[in-house]
Amino acid sequence: MTTNAAPEAIDFADIKAAASRIAAHALVTPVLQSRSLDALVDAELLFKCENLQRVGAFKFRGACNAIWSLPAAQAARGVVTHSSGNHGAALALAASTRGIPAHVIVPEGAVRSKVAAIEMYGATLHRCAATISAREQACEQVREQTGATLVHPYADARVIAGQGTAAMELIAQGGPLDVLLAPVGGGGLISGSAIAAAALAPDCRIIAAEPAGAADTFESLRQGKRISAFVPDTICDGLRTLVGEINLRIMRAHGVEVLTVDDEETIAAMRLIWQRMKIIVEPSSAIVLAAVIKHRQRFAGQRIGLIVSGGNVDLDALPWPARPSTAGEA
Amino acid sequence: MTTNAAPEAIDFADIKAAASRIAAHALVTPVLQSRSLDALVDAELLFKCENLQRVGAFKFRGACNAIWSLPAAQAARGVVTHSSGNHGAALALAASTRGIPAHVIVPEGAVRSKVAAIEMYGATLHRCAATISAREQACEQVREQTGATLVHPYADARVIAGQGTAAMELIAQGGPLDVLLAPVGGGGLISGSAIAAAALAPDCRIIAAEPAGAADTFESLRQGKRISAFVPDTICDGLRTLVGEINLRIMRAHGVEVLTVDDEETIAAMRLIWQRMKIIVEPSSAIVLAAVIKHRQRFAGQRIGLIVSGGNVDLDALPWPARPSTAGEA
Repeated sequence: MTTNAAPEAIDFADIKAAASRIAAHALVTPVLQSRSLDALVDAELLFKCENLQRVGAFKFRGACNAIWSLPAAQAARGVVTHSSGNHGAALALAASTRGIPAHVIVPEGAVRSKVAAIEMYGATLHRCAATISAREQACEQVREQTGATLVHPYADARVIAGQGTAAMELIAQGGPLDVLLAPVGGGGLISGSAIAAAALAPDCRIIAAEPAGAADTFESLRQGKRISAFVPDTICDGLRTLVGEINLRIMRAHGVEVLTVDDEETIAAMRLIWQRMKIIVEPSSAIVLAAVIKHRQRFAGQRIGLIVSGGNVDLDALPWPARPSTAGEA
Repeated sequence: MTTNAAPEAIDFADIKAAASRIAAHALVTPVLQSRSLDALVDAELLFKCENLQRVGAFKFRGACNAIWSLPAAQAARGVVTHSSGNHGAALALAASTRGIPAHVIVPEGAVRSKVAAIEMYGATLHRCAATISAREQACEQVREQTGATLVHPYADARVIAGQGTAAMELIAQGGPLDVLLAPVGGGGLISGSAIAAAALAPDCRIIAAEPAGAADTFESLRQGKRISAFVPDTICDGLRTLVGEINLRIMRAHGVEVLTVDDEETIAAMRLIWQRMKIIVEPSSAIVLAAVIKHRQRFAGQRIGLIVSGGNVDLDALPWPARPSTAGEA
């Protein structure tokens, strides 16, 4: 886990090592339950709240593990990535925990609040055009100029091992599970979760929830090969990415099943979580509850772990009146 | 603690007894921290998240303790209260945990979502006019007809003891505190908190946060007598109540100080908590952070416990578009 290129082989020992590596920096997030949501689906739901993680997303785990895996000399040259979302912010903050430079390639048109967060955590921003090739080229250029190590958002064994620590914690905190659900975008979280669950809870089924409008993972598993031409269309902006090759391999090796969910179902689930659990989750997180609700007959009576991946919603889009309507009183 | 009239004397033993009594029903809510909020005020903040309590508010603790304090024969006749807010919902749910009837007096014009929650938890609703005298009269009538026990929202020793369990848990979970802050409306939470902190952390200062537009507690302590003519004007709907006589006595006995906060400061703090902590809090809860921000020089360098009293905001007032703007991505 300490070479310049990200190693591909990964097992539970890597997740345990990641857990030790990030322990001083990442939070042990709480596992929350809601009796009213349990009653709604007639199952026991354990929500692993990575929306309460630093940076507001599980992404901090993988970024932190990647950064603290680097040998000192390599680390000193910094890290680089081309995500303008949660991974970019996570890498920026994780780099600051080690006092090393972080470079984040930000495409034109990136949301201002996201860019502001990345900058707030101290990363150097590099602007480029909004195409994939422009992003990769800009990334390569920074690597050449600085010697920085690329930390890919999901197709990276160090990142996958870090993401797997959330499922590891959930099983330690919540006890035995019949099912573990996580969203799938690039696949860093679900592949890390699968490795952790296979080691800790071999009878637990691992299920990925994917937007129907970005179901490349579902299709890739069905067709037996990774689909690479795909135009995602979903409200779940964290899940618009194509699944990675290594992530797909791990999912296949662990028999991960994919359930697809329509955006309307995800929005309804997001609203339920806000209302009943009083936590802020983004659509890409709410999709796991939506999958359980959609398939409630199948899941009835079971003990289900759900990884709530993040809570980075643009709250500036909400109304903040001088006198919002509220429902609490003595 | 088992007579029909609520006893007035209350000490830490009552809080410990309440903790045992409610343990099977109430949640041990998490204590959350935020490094960015700590940095903002240059202090260490420990948020005791009663917004994540059942019913979405600390009120469940007091209601549950009151109900499980009753002797069986008395309990069988049920309980009654005249709050249409969190206490009404809390009493309804707490009664259902013991399988006894709950009657809630609901004044004309009460918010429909609140009334729906009380009904959902299985209470019998009794409508009356919106005046205080009509509410008290309706309450008295139900007591005469049913033999139900009145459980007052805050001026009740059983309720105060139950509310004190939140501070007791916070100190057990979070370790030593320099300061403990809680909002004050009727005073059930702050008086219970003061008793718990005095026993567990005698050097900890106890501070109540009160809206400047409902500063009857501040004025009552200043003038040395309870003010009873007061028209509250604040966004903090949970804090519009006049402080209770017994609550004021306990506050005075424990040297509780009151800090007043303007609504604008409370709204800004609420927004900060939603954004940085990814939890939903109501204005009546955010006021404690607002008080720390307002007096940050005084609190700098200290370890501060804040009781986040509830999260019952009317989310129907928020926009739930087909495609909300979000800030998370791979």
